[in-house]
Amino acid sequence: MNNYIFGAAYYEEYAREDRLHRDLSLMEQAGINTIRIAESTWSVEEPRCGEYDFSHVTRVIEAAAEHGIAVIVGTPTYAVPKWLSDLDPEVLGRNKFGPRQNMDITNPTYRFYAEKIIRKLVSLTAPYENVIGFQIDNETKHYNMHNDRVLDGFREWMRARFSGDIEALNAAYMLRHWSASVASFEELPDPEGTVNGGYACAFEEYKRELASEFLHWQAHIVNEYKRDDQFITHNLDFEWKSFGKPGQQEGYSYGVQPGINHYDAAKALTLTGADVYCPTAGELTGMEIAYGGSIMRPLKRSPYLIIESQAEAFTGWLPYPGQLKLMSLAHLASGTCGQMYWSWTSIHGGLETYWKGILPHDGEPGETYREISQTGSLLKKLSAKLETKAQSRIAMIISPENLFAMNWFPTDKSLIYNDIVNDFYRALYEMNLDCDILYDRETDWSGYDVLVFPELYCASDDLVSRVRDFTAAGGTVFAGFRSFFADENALVRPDTQPHGLADVFGIHYQRFTKNDKHLWMELVEADGAEVIRYYDDKHWGDYAAFTHHRFGEGDAWYLACTASVEELKACFRKVCGSAGIEMPQLSWPVIYKKRGQLHFVMNFSDEEAEVSAPVSGTDFESGKRIEEDDRMLLPAWGAVILEKDRN
Amino acid sequence: MNNYIFGAAYYEEYAREDRLHRDLSLMEQAGINTIRIAESTWSVEEPRCGEYDFSHVTRVIEAAAEHGIAVIVGTPTYAVPKWLSDLDPEVLGRNKFGPRQNMDITNPTYRFYAEKIIRKLVSLTAPYENVIGFQIDNETKHYNMHNDRVLDGFREWMRARFSGDIEALNAAYMLRHWSASVASFEELPDPEGTVNGGYACAFEEYKRELASEFLHWQAHIVNEYKRDDQFITHNLDFEWKSFGKPGQQEGYSYGVQPGINHYDAAKALTLTGADVYCPTAGELTGMEIAYGGSIMRPLKRSPYLIIESQAEAFTGWLPYPGQLKLMSLAHLASGTCGQMYWSWTSIHGGLETYWKGILPHDGEPGETYREISQTGSLLKKLSAKLETKAQSRIAMIISPENLFAMNWFPTDKSLIYNDIVNDFYRALYEMNLDCDILYDRETDWSGYDVLVFPELYCASDDLVSRVRDFTAAGGTVFAGFRSFFADENALVRPDTQPHGLADVFGIHYQRFTKNDKHLWMELVEADGAEVIRYYDDKHWGDYAAFTHHRFGEGDAWYLACTASVEELKACFRKVCGSAGIEMPQLSWPVIYKKRGQLHFVMNFSDEEAEVSAPVSGTDFESGKRIEEDDRMLLPAWGAVILEKDRN
Amino acid sequence: MNNYIFGAAYYEEYAREDRLHRDLSLMEQAGINTIRIAESTWSVEEPRCGEYDFSHVTRVIEAAAEHGIAVIVGTPTYAVPKWLSDLDPEVLGRNKFGPRQNMDITNPTYRFYAEKIIRKLVSLTAPYENVIGFQIDNETKHYNMHNDRVLDGFREWMRARFSGDIEALNAAYMLRHWSASVASFEELPDPEGTVNGGYACAFEEYKRELASEFLHWQAHIVNEYKRDDQFITHNLDFEWKSFGKPGQQEGYSYGVQPGINHYDAAKALTLTGADVYCPTAGELTGMEIAYGGSIMRPLKRSPYLIIESQAEAFTGWLPYPGQLKLMSLAHLASGTCGQMYWSWTSIHGGLETYWKGILPHDGEPGETYREISQTGSLLKKLSAKLETKAQSRIAMIISPENLFAMNWFPTDKSLIYNDIVNDFYRALYEMNLDCDILYDRETDWSGYDVLVFPELYCASDDLVSRVRDFTAAGGTVFAGFRSFFADENALVRPDTQPHGLADVFGIHYQRFTKNDKHLWMELVEADGAEVIRYYDDKHWGDYAAFTHHRFGEGDAWYLACTASVEELKACFRKVCGSAGIEMPQLSWPVIYKKRGQLHFVMNFSDEEAEVSAPVSGTDFESGKRIEEDDRMLLPAWGAVILEKDRN
Repeated sequence: MNNYIFGAAYYEEYAREDRLHRDLSLMEQAGINTIRIAESTWSVEEPRCGEYDFSHVTRVIEAAAEHGIAVIVGTPTYAVPKWLSDLDPEVLGRNKFGPRQNMDITNPTYRFYAEKIIRKLVSLTAPYENVIGFQIDNETKHYNMHNDRVLDGFREWMRARFSGDIEALNAAYMLRHWSASVASFEELPDPEGTVNGGYACAFEEYKRELASEFLHWQAHIVNEYKRDDQFITHNLDFEWKSFGKPGQQEGYSYGVQPGINHYDAAKALTLTGADVYCPTAGELTGMEIAYGGSIMRPLKRSPYLIIESQAEAFTGWLPYPGQLKLMSLAHLASGTCGQMYWSWTSIHGGLETYWKGILPHDGEPGETYREISQTGSLLKKLSAKLETKAQSRIAMIISPENLFAMNWFPTDKSLIYNDIVNDFYRALYEMNLDCDILYDRETDWSGYDVLVFPELYCASDDLVSRVRDFTAAGGTVFAGFRSFFADENALVRPDTQPHGLADVFGIHYQRFTKNDKHLWMELVEADGAEVIRYYDDKHWGDYAAFTHHRFGEGDAWYLACTASVEELKACFRKVCGSAGIEMPQLSWPVIYKKRGQLHFVMNFSDEEAEVSAPVSGTDFESGKRIEEDDRMLLPAWGAVILEKDRN
Repeated sequence: MNNYIFGAAYYEEYAREDRLHRDLSLMEQAGINTIRIAESTWSVEEPRCGEYDFSHVTRVIEAAAEHGIAVIVGTPTYAVPKWLSDLDPEVLGRNKFGPRQNMDITNPTYRFYAEKIIRKLVSLTAPYENVIGFQIDNETKHYNMHNDRVLDGFREWMRARFSGDIEALNAAYMLRHWSASVASFEELPDPEGTVNGGYACAFEEYKRELASEFLHWQAHIVNEYKRDDQFITHNLDFEWKSFGKPGQQEGYSYGVQPGINHYDAAKALTLTGADVYCPTAGELTGMEIAYGGSIMRPLKRSPYLIIESQAEAFTGWLPYPGQLKLMSLAHLASGTCGQMYWSWTSIHGGLETYWKGILPHDGEPGETYREISQTGSLLKKLSAKLETKAQSRIAMIISPENLFAMNWFPTDKSLIYNDIVNDFYRALYEMNLDCDILYDRETDWSGYDVLVFPELYCASDDLVSRVRDFTAAGGTVFAGFRSFFADENALVRPDTQPHGLADVFGIHYQRFTKNDKHLWMELVEADGAEVIRYYDDKHWGDYAAFTHHRFGEGDAWYLACTASVEELKACFRKVCGSAGIEMPQLSWPVIYKKRGQLHFVMNFSDEEAEVSAPVSGTDFESGKRIEEDDRMLLPAWGAVILEKDRN
Repeated sequence: MNNYIFGAAYYEEYAREDRLHRDLSLMEQAGINTIRIAESTWSVEEPRCGEYDFSHVTRVIEAAAEHGIAVIVGTPTYAVPKWLSDLDPEVLGRNKFGPRQNMDITNPTYRFYAEKIIRKLVSLTAPYENVIGFQIDNETKHYNMHNDRVLDGFREWMRARFSGDIEALNAAYMLRHWSASVASFEELPDPEGTVNGGYACAFEEYKRELASEFLHWQAHIVNEYKRDDQFITHNLDFEWKSFGKPGQQEGYSYGVQPGINHYDAAKALTLTGADVYCPTAGELTGMEIAYGGSIMRPLKRSPYLIIESQAEAFTGWLPYPGQLKLMSLAHLASGTCGQMYWSWTSIHGGLETYWKGILPHDGEPGETYREISQTGSLLKKLSAKLETKAQSRIAMIISPENLFAMNWFPTDKSLIYNDIVNDFYRALYEMNLDCDILYDRETDWSGYDVLVFPELYCASDDLVSRVRDFTAAGGTVFAGFRSFFADENALVRPDTQPHGLADVFGIHYQRFTKNDKHLWMELVEADGAEVIRYYDDKHWGDYAAFTHHRFGEGDAWYLACTASVEELKACFRKVCGSAGIEMPQLSWPVIYKKRGQLHFVMNFSDEEAEVSAPVSGTDFESGKRIEEDDRMLLPAWGAVILEKDRN
């Protein structure tokens, strides 16, 4: 319906007076062409068991049509009504009624009523022309479900995983340790009590699979009703780095999501969707926006939709002038097919009272609305020029299995997987090196020249052998410390480290420790590798911190210790050099991204920046001609969009 | 019986040898004229269900009479005996036996046995001539009672509050958010699980009402037996600012009490009573003493009794020479009709082992006893001169509803209601500006010239309109940030802020944020108000931080951001100026308070202070004549009491 | 079998391939003469209820015999198999299956199956000639068992303690406080809810007795089978000072053990054993090793076995070159009869994956193995020269009762008993003053010249009178603040402090407080004592901080406040002076210890040290002749062993 979705979540149900047409007019004027509705209000849509009332939904869809506004309809399954938890308290399991996402998504009662309302809602709304797609559920995770059904399911899943061989399972997790081995799958203990990290990680993996399965189940139902031109999407999200008071919501998107595996979940969707929140005001760096794109783009190798992004959000995040537009450009430059705000208006009660939207609490358009309106006009013009973004040459490999294994075997309480992933990514981001992030379940590495492994602790033999082949065939690999250390069950490999790749990297090590500079340092000895850097340490100065080895046609780089972002940049300069990737001239706070012929030069800084134009072209907004290397002045939080000459 | 009560809590039951007459003689010598007994020792008074033994009580009353000492008898209901919790475990609900105040005060079994022992104890002791009054229960709060009876009571209370209209309730708390709306009052969920701040606040309010009702119930029983000349009192207390190890008791009186509403509770009493503890030694400022008076005086517009105050209390609080006397004078200057210590002697076991009394653990009079004895003589002489204190011209408006709403919507984890109240009060205290503190339920604002609203977030339409009328009629109002932001259900107002008073203050704002200096800052624009101070901020420097507006015959001042105590003082100088209140010459650490003809000049400092006499009069202790502006030398922690000349 | 045990824990059950003979050969080459087996693997030894399989055990014993290696067999009772917790969930009580030491050691089902496997295992292995002894259970503590049986047992224990007199019990803990007194022993409340510190301490004491009784029970069973030449040992351990992430294991041995009373437990053993872990790399001081010896030696006044000590252990503890040998010498110099490592090889799964052993994860001997091999040769030579260590002249008196009482009555949250014990010990250690640590239950003080009481808060009348007698008879006592303050029930003494010893110390005090320098300071007045130091404090400068008094033939020193390690050293210099103990010339980081004719000069420093030889003798390793006062050069983390000339 629209070349580029520019939208907002809209909750007519929360309104304190009837302002539907006023809202839609204001949206229309602001270039907002899409709203997302219905995903949070099951108790309004079915106030009593079996009594359905979709009048809010249809009223909004019909009014939106009058204003030329498209609608994404969300299934309301992530927040159950009180009557459902009263009907069967097992729906909530150990949780109390009150929060959202407090239910057991495998509970049969829940599934029964969820299916009924999904069928009613989707069958009712699919025929509307301006309904362009469906969102299934909302930010689905496994919510640490825990009951006999889930435990029995886990036992069966384990039986399948180990082909019914309980001794294989005992060995795979070394359950004999502290007398935890068992004689049958039925005896497998509740993982909540376990002190066996590998076993605990397996349970997390099982629960993530349940979460993905739930989305597939919803997608199948929606598919029975939706038109071919309607998409199925879902707002995948990230770990939530919390900074508020306990019980409050302040936080932002950060690193690998522990509660669902995006790789599996995305297979249920026809359009990848994501929620991205980032610190703003003095702390806006743009990194979370780029990170979101890096992880979303490869899931379907196609553009993705930002379903939630912030307007004013939390107190203290009130955007400085220019930041709202800058963030929209950063999303677009990262490969989106649209961006939606959460939410249209600030709400007056409930936990999200201070998660502010486009309109303030008084409902009157203000500065935030004005800047978003200007952005809307610009995006409309830009949308005509959009091309699918080319794939990055660099890929970083991550996994939630790894995240949990690291939580279980931290060796230092400050050594956190998502911090390490974040630092690796930040180094690339600040150097304007484009990067995709791949789940380790992705076996298609075609098109990438460099593979980066930030502490890929758990690696199957298959993964290890693909790394070997990739390198031998001319690829460049860059592995961080502790990569390939354990197998897919988080069991440490009993042979030379890095497991199966010592000859590829031309190194080996047996011991590791920490010092004032490094929370982890392996005492690496080179067996053919060139030592790029030795440790600066009185006792361990003879051991290698960073090495390089030619293997077959390729290059293998190994970083044996934790490193600062600046140290990682120094590594990446060498790694990219060996892969023939040119280092960009511009660097953060000036972020430079290309999408087809559109080149975005963005200043993530509170100070004006003077830079050289990276290409010749036309300033998209002013129409001014700019030659490569011309000096350009970027205002604080400003951007220049260059439309590159087509040669 | 006595002009001025000077007393101590006395627990003959804890004594390790018979020292009753020795103790009473020592008291007599020290000028201690009153003891409080019996409120902690139900298990001694009724060692087995139905077996009563009040011998300790009557023995002490009779012995006290011999020494001319009056007695306040406390009902022992705040600490239940083991047999009662064994008889009906529901008495303790979710709590274990061990701590005090661990029972459900609405439990029928508890009420049955509590009533029995109250009747026995009061009927037995009321006839004694030296029993001057009764304390009902002890530091009553609601103790987070939680069970089906309380929840059902809450549902009925809600039904009444919303006149049976469940949709009105859904709207009032915006329960539709995240699908929490319900179809009937029976369906109302347990508030312990809720993430809806307004709904949670309502439950707290209900529980506070149960706590007040409990005191009214006790008062009615006592009334059946007590003589007309006997008072009913209770020791109201404050939030407890804890600084010890978890599970320990170290702490002090701080801010608004969350567990009961003093305004309602005081109606059960004939004499307002309070417990006030404050840091001493190097950290004695006197503020908590003055604060206690500010909040107690207006409850009945009459003198109040300090039922507990510290002797030595916690390790590290050992008073420096002079501090005990200084604290006693500060209490008296704040409007008391008496002051009692907790407790007579240090005890040897139990949780209060290191909450030390007047006598040390060895039971021998020492330095603390000596200074209290000297204070006793002085108070006796002063008591002849006491007059009821005149009302302050400034009133600060607070509420526990507000405290909870702020806890639920903090916007920053360091932004705590009682800290804000504390800072506002400290600014006034340090400038020697007398101030009353009124609960927002108090509708009688007569006699006050200035009303101060430190973040009065929840304000009913009635309150808002009284603020308007007060200003129009010539009053001065000073509102802190975020005041009048929400209604009495903590639902944010959907119109221009400050709600209903934008024209009174001559300002409006839509947006707010924070920066390095302010945890909260509203972007206020003046609509007629004079901007006294703009923000010192690169991005928000065009918005007002502090404004003044004439409205009708009055003045309206608005502070749009958090502020330091020094910044608050600067505001108060202007506010008081507009109200014609003269700024005192003396300031903290020299505290200056008047009570009738007695003028107290008190030095809360470890250094000697030289000050000008604020009035002409006679030094009460030396008898020396002092003229206004004479230089007076105040020793460290010393005071001069001037008896002002009657003109 | 061996003069000096040099060994390692060995878990053939965890091996991922058969490497038994390879391991034993490597041990043999390294001088490792003993292994400890079987204590962790019940689930392998009895995979199903009643199905026993000791093939791993006998296979290892037999193979060890071929390599001339002795075996200590451990009973596997500290980690229960899943089938046992399924059979009777009460075995785990409130705990989940997963961790070790999660069972109720008083549970009859547990006892039944534990007894069966102990009998099977011990009867099977006792006949093997190379089995030199048995370890009963592993690091036994009481694990906070909590159920009706334990509570009823506690009530009966209390009945016995108070000879059936419930009023005596009420008085002993002052249960009347807050109405907690009871009418019968049956009514005694669950101590988990109590706020009465003395009562809570009594429950802890009871549970420690249960833990000791459990060891005695196991010892009795083992005694039915073991040969006379086989010992019974157990690895006593210490408080675990944790520094890792919650749920992880990083920590080290620190202070008094709260979960069992070593004094009682040791009576079940024929050979005292202990586990000692200490920070290494840059943080190795040797103190924990010496501390372990000080507490173990006096239990049987005989050499003790270190059953677990670290090889590489936690990440960051990787020993610097020389440290492994240095630690072994420090153990030997402290009075051991052997030292064993935990464990032989690093393991690949489970919670101890990063608690690294002698071999790294790849199972290949590396640097750690090499240094341990060299140490093995040296120990073999030294073992021929070993004599039983002479008793120290100084004894420090401690108790777990005191530890808990201090936790309950902290007066400051930073004032922690084990920190105080640690500081007292560190002062002595750093001055090279040998010291034994005695439990307060030890009544034999013969042979000691100085008794040190670091905050011995709980002291019975008997103990007090023994202190008096010891001093009168010419001994030197040095008491830290708050010693003798309470009785054995943690009830504060109602008379002059220090209770019963005011005349011995020639002082008294009533009051105490804290200031910037001291977390606790008593306001001590001298009654005959010489004041060595007054407080440096504006208000309390007239009170004594440190005093000395001659009493009878002896000297009594009193330290009235917390003190730094350096201040404690100044005190000890005076205390030792009065006892005629010469101050050693050498001080930390150079540690000097004697064992018979062997004198160890050890450099716990990362820098080379030049010192004067303390005696004339022969350098044990080089054979070089050294005269007293010759300069000796100690490398970083190096040691010289002088074999003193026999005169």
